[in-house]
Amino acid sequence: MKAVVYRSARHLEVEHRDPEPPGPGQLRIAVAYTGICGTDLHVYHGDMDARVGASAVIGHEMSGRVAEVGAGVTGHAVGQPVTVLPTRFCGRCVACRRGNPHICHAMNFLGVDSPGAMQSSWTVPAELVVPLPDGLPLDEAALVEPVAVAVHDVRRGRVTDADQVVVVGGGPVGVLIATVARQRGARVLLVEPDPFRRAVATGIGIDAVDPGETDVAALVDARTEGAGADVAFEVSGSAAGVGTAVDVLTTRGRLVMVAIHPQPRPVNLHRVFWRELELLGARLYQRDDMVEAVRLVASGAIPARQLISRVVPADAAASAFTALEGGGVMKVLLDWQEGDR
Amino acid sequence: MKAVVYRSARHLEVEHRDPEPPGPGQLRIAVAYTGICGTDLHVYHGDMDARVGASAVIGHEMSGRVAEVGAGVTGHAVGQPVTVLPTRFCGRCVACRRGNPHICHAMNFLGVDSPGAMQSSWTVPAELVVPLPDGLPLDEAALVEPVAVAVHDVRRGRVTDADQVVVVGGGPVGVLIATVARQRGARVLLVEPDPFRRAVATGIGIDAVDPGETDVAALVDARTEGAGADVAFEVSGSAAGVGTAVDVLTTRGRLVMVAIHPQPRPVNLHRVFWRELELLGARLYQRDDMVEAVRLVASGAIPARQLISRVVPADAAASAFTALEGGGVMKVLLDWQEGDR
Repeated sequence: MKAVVYRSARHLEVEHRDPEPPGPGQLRIAVAYTGICGTDLHVYHGDMDARVGASAVIGHEMSGRVAEVGAGVTGHAVGQPVTVLPTRFCGRCVACRRGNPHICHAMNFLGVDSPGAMQSSWTVPAELVVPLPDGLPLDEAALVEPVAVAVHDVRRGRVTDADQVVVVGGGPVGVLIATVARQRGARVLLVEPDPFRRAVATGIGIDAVDPGETDVAALVDARTEGAGADVAFEVSGSAAGVGTAVDVLTTRGRLVMVAIHPQPRPVNLHRVFWRELELLGARLYQRDDMVEAVRLVASGAIPARQLISRVVPADAAASAFTALEGGGVMKVLLDWQEGDR
Repeated sequence: MKAVVYRSARHLEVEHRDPEPPGPGQLRIAVAYTGICGTDLHVYHGDMDARVGASAVIGHEMSGRVAEVGAGVTGHAVGQPVTVLPTRFCGRCVACRRGNPHICHAMNFLGVDSPGAMQSSWTVPAELVVPLPDGLPLDEAALVEPVAVAVHDVRRGRVTDADQVVVVGGGPVGVLIATVARQRGARVLLVEPDPFRRAVATGIGIDAVDPGETDVAALVDARTEGAGADVAFEVSGSAAGVGTAVDVLTTRGRLVMVAIHPQPRPVNLHRVFWRELELLGARLYQRDDMVEAVRLVASGAIPARQLISRVVPADAAASAFTALEGGGVMKVLLDWQEGDR
């Protein structure tokens, strides 16, 4: 079988390895597709060397089929279409003890802390495997993991069908949050400077504006009779995005912090106080979010295919990472179905 | 009667005026005591000239007795001890329509937007009057309004008896938040650099530390087996205070933003994301908070008398404001009971 191996910053190699037979309680999965995520790009840029070991197999967005069933595993059969919840929690830390294992303090994130999905044959604990319905195309199913992020974020924002939602940042996660919020019945406005990303969003019926050309707060006020947005999602990772998200909110509005901000950002705390705003950190997802994500993708509520810009053979992984940096793409998938397992 | 009148920045005068007879639906109150609040100091410094008119009567923390009952007012009698909810809402804005009239967009705040409590005879709408129990000394009752702030803040932070609470800032509101949180059964740590304020807090049994000498996050970790605080209150108004409040929180911890931060502050949004923290703006109070505040002060749960540093005759208002700027005092009251009404 083959695997995408991270050697060092900007240096990936496709390596041939022997498949790992499943031990007791494990499943071996024949990987069909893997998506490339912002976290994978961070790894690629060398920003996560402290967590990612040398010669690590990266990746955590995937779909595939069960290829081999380890001893003692029930409820799974060879050929079953599946995806994987790429998070293992310790069960002992304060986050786990208080019912939030998805943000476990000793989290083992597959594809970062242990071998990931970018290999044609992936052996994982059976309890992390999430079944997919038979009719769901596996390329679309590779988007289940980022959809689970969006489901978690929308749940954290308590979005209802009475809400005006503003999503700041129109990369894959931002567009998926907009889509899930719309599916919940909310009115949604996406804010994104990049014309390609706006065009993709517009193509799936999401109303998208350029913050360089539009006074977003004024537009939201006009659309809400001066009330402001009920929920904003900060998915841009930029200081300007934080400012916009705070500025658009109505009294007691909710701001869900989705993006990673490596440095502290100036926040208008006077407005937080004055309007009694609520800022909510949101990270990863719980199993329920992923199950709901499967349901949304399978039902067609998420136009997954229209978000897949390109599917490239796994051998071309290095060039796919380069292409993602260049922009002009939304989601890029690696196809693992050619060649040996 | 006499009134403390704001002329211009740092210029207060005690003026003699005719009492205003109560119109229909109004009550005239013989004011007993008024407290001087941080907001009054902001007015005094000229920071609120855009809202406070020339020759305005300021002040909104008070106690007194009904002196005259206007036409059509029922349920009140001359001599009844009372305090006043100093907020009038419009009933039409989005905050009012959505059940949050206490942060009405067109709020009329008595003592800022219309005549306040620093006058020996105050005529107000009867619906703003909150009865006090007979046995409650009126000097202690002048603290009901800031206690209502603390009640609202603690409620916003959803403090329970299972919580470790950290209050950053030990002025009157910070100390009252600490006291109300303790009354709810929480373990409380107060963070305050000023030794006088720490001594006042310690004097009423609040555990208080100096952030210049103590690593607050390490101390909280040590006291919570590494978990961190469940709720933090930012009452300092300082950038450092914001940093401390974010740093001490456990996973999914709540940070209540109480203080006014005139300029944007750097916030560690990575930690907000990573720990799924919750930041909650909290402003003013609702009538229920004030009713609860009356109950807490009257029951002795709030050691109001120990927080009153000084009671001065109303004629000495100007020097009382100067004294507050100098520090070394917690709550200063003006006594209106001498002289004409």
